[in-house]
Amino acid sequence: MENFVAYNPTKLVFGKGVIAQLGKEVQPYGKKALVVIGKGSVKKNGILEAVYQQLTEAGVSYTLYEGIKSNPIYEDADAAIAQAKAFQADMIVAIGGGSVIDSAKAIAAGYYVNHSVWDFYLRKAPAPTKALPVFAVLTLAATGTEMNMFTVLQSDAEKAKHGYGSPLLYPKVSFLDPEYTYSVPSTYTAYGVADLIAHSLEQFFDTSNSPLSDASAAEIIRLAMKYGREVHKNPHSYEARANIMWLATAALNGSLSAGKLGGDFGVHGIEHCLSVLFDIAHGAGLSIVYPAWMRHFYSQIEGKLTFLAQRTLHPNATANDFIVELEKFFVEINTPIRLSEAGIDREQHALILDNLKQNNPKGRFFKLTEADYSSILHLMA
Amino acid sequence: MENFVAYNPTKLVFGKGVIAQLGKEVQPYGKKALVVIGKGSVKKNGILEAVYQQLTEAGVSYTLYEGIKSNPIYEDADAAIAQAKAFQADMIVAIGGGSVIDSAKAIAAGYYVNHSVWDFYLRKAPAPTKALPVFAVLTLAATGTEMNMFTVLQSDAEKAKHGYGSPLLYPKVSFLDPEYTYSVPSTYTAYGVADLIAHSLEQFFDTSNSPLSDASAAEIIRLAMKYGREVHKNPHSYEARANIMWLATAALNGSLSAGKLGGDFGVHGIEHCLSVLFDIAHGAGLSIVYPAWMRHFYSQIEGKLTFLAQRTLHPNATANDFIVELEKFFVEINTPIRLSEAGIDREQHALILDNLKQNNPKGRFFKLTEADYSSILHLMA
Repeated sequence: MENFVAYNPTKLVFGKGVIAQLGKEVQPYGKKALVVIGKGSVKKNGILEAVYQQLTEAGVSYTLYEGIKSNPIYEDADAAIAQAKAFQADMIVAIGGGSVIDSAKAIAAGYYVNHSVWDFYLRKAPAPTKALPVFAVLTLAATGTEMNMFTVLQSDAEKAKHGYGSPLLYPKVSFLDPEYTYSVPSTYTAYGVADLIAHSLEQFFDTSNSPLSDASAAEIIRLAMKYGREVHKNPHSYEARANIMWLATAALNGSLSAGKLGGDFGVHGIEHCLSVLFDIAHGAGLSIVYPAWMRHFYSQIEGKLTFLAQRTLHPNATANDFIVELEKFFVEINTPIRLSEAGIDREQHALILDNLKQNNPKGRFFKLTEADYSSILHLMA
Repeated sequence: MENFVAYNPTKLVFGKGVIAQLGKEVQPYGKKALVVIGKGSVKKNGILEAVYQQLTEAGVSYTLYEGIKSNPIYEDADAAIAQAKAFQADMIVAIGGGSVIDSAKAIAAGYYVNHSVWDFYLRKAPAPTKALPVFAVLTLAATGTEMNMFTVLQSDAEKAKHGYGSPLLYPKVSFLDPEYTYSVPSTYTAYGVADLIAHSLEQFFDTSNSPLSDASAAEIIRLAMKYGREVHKNPHSYEARANIMWLATAALNGSLSAGKLGGDFGVHGIEHCLSVLFDIAHGAGLSIVYPAWMRHFYSQIEGKLTFLAQRTLHPNATANDFIVELEKFFVEINTPIRLSEAGIDREQHALILDNLKQNNPKGRFFKLTEADYSSILHLMA
């Protein structure tokens, strides 16, 4: 086992009706909130209204920033920061999925500085020394941002997507009501499942020897496949929605990295190039890249794949079975496994390769070179 | 899944040489520390000296409270509180196993009140509204107190052992160096393994449906059996010591209770009567009580036992195999499975039964009556 730090101060309030606790939780943090949302579905389904009511009862006034994109851009975060400053916000309340919560973290970090938040992501600016408190109301089970210190934004102009992390950016309290995800369309539900499986795999392919972390990653993947199928058949199954929601959090709240060095994340780097180029959902990109990546590095990861196969499929399953069954599962729940299924044809491969060379995702344990990009691209076709 | 809150603000610093980070971590919390230790082994092996050096380098002066017993008594906590008040301590630094850290939490909670800490445990006093920060240097892998909000103390006069919990009592930072446990004797190492397995079982036998929690409990037990055997054979195996240490923390840091109601803990209640009467180690008591408890409730838990058997032993193992193999394992690592092995003969059964009736441990999911006490006592003989 490697030396590690286990630390996660986020309070996660999980279950039916937990929004009723929001007022009480935000009250100690101030009197003014910037509420951040995406394209407005939370206006229609009553969630925004429920949050407003909680804020009002807690004596917290608010202003709304609306329109965060599903691949969130730094310009929105910068505009929201200006609004938060003008309003003299004491806190950010994010309602949405990963894009909204990641943007809220950016706003929190950018509130006390006078440069674009993008400079944090480009490592051009020194790390923030303070940040506004962030509260998150999760409406999509996928990225795990509701219980970690990371945020990912992109620049459309630069065709670049970057992550950033700071211990200041753990949400103070996150509210996870599985019923809020009943209305998530089948496709986005599937992308979320692909995302949580990819997070588990990234940490699993950190080859540091940490037996509990590896066993836990396998269990999360096994259950994600089980409940991913169940929620696909029955989108209003509380148990299926609740399990997927908790698995997505557990896959990236630090517990799978105990005794490890932090994961590989080469696949994430490759996927970021896809979503920045073609505006496809991050989870959909991951379900395309991961099988190809596993086939490309097969000889180096056969032992680890066999472990996964035996724990997620059956005791005699082989390494290759895991890749094949994972692909079958992705197909079954309706998330793409090839670029062509996402409408990306061979003529665009040169564009992808250029972007990969430009952004140069490396991978930590399975180092990626230009030759690897080409081979993986070929396998994703 | 049940509604739940996942919250654990303790920062756990794990690995070789982590004591070197203690000074930096305590510095923001003040200038004066009460250092609490047990019977003095940390004086001989250099750990106390290493902590003193860190405190001195951080500009923190200290006073030592020595002599916490392995079944810690509230009188020691009260005496240490008086010493902390006289010294005007800003923080408590505990160096030891569960007994020392649990006592440190009691001291932290009692620092700001003018009654005996025991009143908290007896629910006679209102909950504390503030507490001194606690830092823990763990030297024995067992109870998980290094990363939770609980503390257990006893009264010898009242022949009673009680737990208490408050969110104020999470240690701020805990330092876990597996090498610090190399010198733990084989017996106490085994009791620690029994303790962590018992914690996993208590939460596993919370019958709320929480698949990831149940799967994780099984994995922790499987690995505890694997590395428990390894550390028994090779006490200086870093990997074995590190795994046992992390498993013990993970077994009671909240992750196994996600989606559940908090565990059964009937076995813990029964064990507390044993350790308060006969001053046996808590883990030794648990390895006696658990097999008997599982046999007693067999018909109600057969399905859950089968799940455990298949995940910790082999895919075709039966419910009964789990009990038999767990006993074999306990015997192999040298922790008792019958009262007689702990020197408690049948003449003392009446005494145990009286104490059980007096303290009346209930169990949350498998309710305990006087008839259950008698039957379990018979099975433990």
